[in-house]
Amino acid sequence: MERRKVLKIAAGAVAAGGSGLVAMTTAFKPEVKAAEKPKNIEFKANESDWKYVPLEPATTAEIAYAEYPNGSCMYGVFKSVVSQLAAIVGEPFASFPSQMMKYGHGGVNGYGTICGALNGAAAAVSLLVGDKKNCDVLMAELFAAYETTPLPEFKPKDPGMDFEPPKSVAKSVLCHASTTRWGKKAGYTISSKERKERCRRLTADIAFKVVTILNNYHANTFMANAHDNETARTCMTCHGSEGKLGNTSGKMTCTSCHEESLAHKVFADSHHKFMSKR
Amino acid sequence: MERRKVLKIAAGAVAAGGSGLVAMTTAFKPEVKAAEKPKNIEFKANESDWKYVPLEPATTAEIAYAEYPNGSCMYGVFKSVVSQLAAIVGEPFASFPSQMMKYGHGGVNGYGTICGALNGAAAAVSLLVGDKKNCDVLMAELFAAYETTPLPEFKPKDPGMDFEPPKSVAKSVLCHASTTRWGKKAGYTISSKERKERCRRLTADIAFKVVTILNNYHANTFMANAHDNETARTCMTCHGSEGKLGNTSGKMTCTSCHEESLAHKVFADSHHKFMSKR
Repeated sequence: MERRKVLKIAAGAVAAGGSGLVAMTTAFKPEVKAAEKPKNIEFKANESDWKYVPLEPATTAEIAYAEYPNGSCMYGVFKSVVSQLAAIVGEPFASFPSQMMKYGHGGVNGYGTICGALNGAAAAVSLLVGDKKNCDVLMAELFAAYETTPLPEFKPKDPGMDFEPPKSVAKSVLCHASTTRWGKKAGYTISSKERKERCRRLTADIAFKVVTILNNYHANTFMANAHDNETARTCMTCHGSEGKLGNTSGKMTCTSCHEESLAHKVFADSHHKFMSKR
Repeated sequence: MERRKVLKIAAGAVAAGGSGLVAMTTAFKPEVKAAEKPKNIEFKANESDWKYVPLEPATTAEIAYAEYPNGSCMYGVFKSVVSQLAAIVGEPFASFPSQMMKYGHGGVNGYGTICGALNGAAAAVSLLVGDKKNCDVLMAELFAAYETTPLPEFKPKDPGMDFEPPKSVAKSVLCHASTTRWGKKAGYTISSKERKERCRRLTADIAFKVVTILNNYHANTFMANAHDNETARTCMTCHGSEGKLGNTSGKMTCTSCHEESLAHKVFADSHHKFMSKR
């Protein structure tokens, strides 16, 4: 966005929106005049510069495993892909600030939401594929595999510790649920080095899988083969955007957080009277 | 990562890990020889180049609202910050591929996990602040505000539609829960244009808030003032990494998905016998 457009939008914007969150800004003075002078750098990357070239999945998994200690799960997956493209293609990959992906640790800044390995994979796929609908299809494949595959599978060439993590089925793409379920199965605490080794190997698994998906997409040989998420499909038949209720969205396994109430079993069909405006 | 390191790791890596996800790769042949020649571009960005300069929160909110239709919530928040830095500072912001942030729509590729506005804010804070511990503190402030503040608050200067969205308290940072709770309160379906307008304004709210936080951090005047998440604190006293069970992690409001069982009420203290290895 050009400066004049920014300033144009700025006109009167101060009077607009967000007032309720304004508490912390009462003392705010814009310091645009104090900003650095624009740097005159010839290099300009545009969308077409972010071209994927096929990578070796097993190599990518080893790199993700090696990078995990430097920035956790999201960083490990993203860096394993982009660092190889930087070595092979050069710019713009060489200048991408992959360190920013460290925020995905622990389900985004430790909040326990999406598994960082999946967040990093989604970021990489979006950068390299672009088209929103295609990205959604490719990632649904990865997410469904994550929810249903016993992980971790990866066996590192140079293990960080002498421990073979038990496998568990996450039944969820959320860090909180995935790590808790593994801990319950394996009998280790959330802060144990064994749990961290599990996540380190799972990071390698996701790096392997996302590069496999990208290679197939690049070669026009991609075929979705993850199992259909039956619980989500069953619920979304009525609750999804195409359902008679159309009151929710999402593709996560529903039963990780929800169970069907007796009232729903008996009276579900009466829900139509609660239909929302369309 | 340099090419030689990649190749070094590649040695023997094919024999390693990820075998269970190998199904789709049987026909894979690395095409590194077919890759583009490395481009010789002088520009190299490093971490210190991603310097934040204070931005006007209300202006940022207007830009986020204007950008939302071009790429949804995560893109709207991220682009509203980076596009202004590109206009003021220039490179490396001008070349950042903000379009990649479109993947955050609908809780990451429509999966319903983390609200894209928060994912975009976390990505921007990580890029501009860097330090992991500081990023976690700043984002916990934003996440807690999101869970407890009736949103949306933003009033656009140039509204996309003649509709004032009712406010709802998300009680969750997950897209699925946040949008469903709003729809229940407002009486609109998940695919309604009214729900999209709600998310468009919420995107502006988060852009306003994250720039407010960044300005205060930049001015060394940041003070966390979000209410403590009592439900999470209560549960994590035993279940968190410092608790006697130490069997889970996360900062999300627990009661959005979990309710206390009678058995837990009566026998919670006997949990110590299920303690995991540390």
